[in-house]
Amino acid sequence: MTVTGSPSDAEAKHRLEEGSTFAPKFDADGLIVCITTEIASGDVLMVAYMNEEALRRTFATGIVHYWSRSRRELWRKGDTSGQVQTVREICVDCDQDALLLKVAVGGDGKACHTGRRTCFYRRVVMQGDEAMLVETPEPARIET
Amino acid sequence: MTVTGSPSDAEAKHRLEEGSTFAPKFDADGLIVCITTEIASGDVLMVAYMNEEALRRTFATGIVHYWSRSRRELWRKGDTSGQVQTVREICVDCDQDALLLKVAVGGDGKACHTGRRTCFYRRVVMQGDEAMLVETPEPARIET
Repeated sequence: MTVTGSPSDAEAKHRLEEGSTFAPKFDADGLIVCITTEIASGDVLMVAYMNEEALRRTFATGIVHYWSRSRRELWRKGDTSGQVQTVREICVDCDQDALLLKVAVGGDGKACHTGRRTCFYRRVVMQGDEAMLVETPEPARIET
Repeated sequence: MTVTGSPSDAEAKHRLEEGSTFAPKFDADGLIVCITTEIASGDVLMVAYMNEEALRRTFATGIVHYWSRSRRELWRKGDTSGQVQTVREICVDCDQDALLLKVAVGGDGKACHTGRRTCFYRRVVMQGDEAMLVETPEPARIET
């Protein structure tokens, strides 16, 4: 016998996927993964996490707050660097366990702590059987 | 006294962030988060996870494999739907705990199991104090 879930499971799934209720699903650590893209270029800048308080503050202020897993603290991105991220749009995925933040970046427009515009500055290339990293040149900044 | 880490910690961090060695960091569950974008439009299609075997098979075949956390199995995306994802580029972030996959989508070009092109088909809008979801119209498909 295969257990396929009750009708109410199917209804709950349908509401989650098709409904208009925002019900972000935080994981066992109370976090939700966030993909941050630059509104002007659409480029993926970084991946980070929010807890409920970070999400609440992001909505309340329009400025992106994350939860730093390494420092274990709330983190208003750009507080020290000036590279504040202003929310232009927040999207949620089908099962509401991931957020897509479209932002404008303040300061010098760099989102990565290494001084690059995006954290994804290296691509993987195969050299024989070995996977190596090669840095991708930075495109010019699109002003918003 | 503040413990700031040994010089060898700093060296290891520098190698991870600036080096050419691909050293993906899998989490306690053996997974790494993957952001999948459509190569033609740059749009974020979905967020999923890979374990080491999924990553190995993705490199070996050029077709994206994920690890399904809900089904607890390796998952060659598109196996049943035909919406196979062909790898065009794989990037890694600064601390190598997230992957960015740029793909071409096969079949009807839809990446989401709900029948949409992307899993991020709803944006959050504030109605008074309440956050609600509104569906974003799908743009026309860009042929690759």
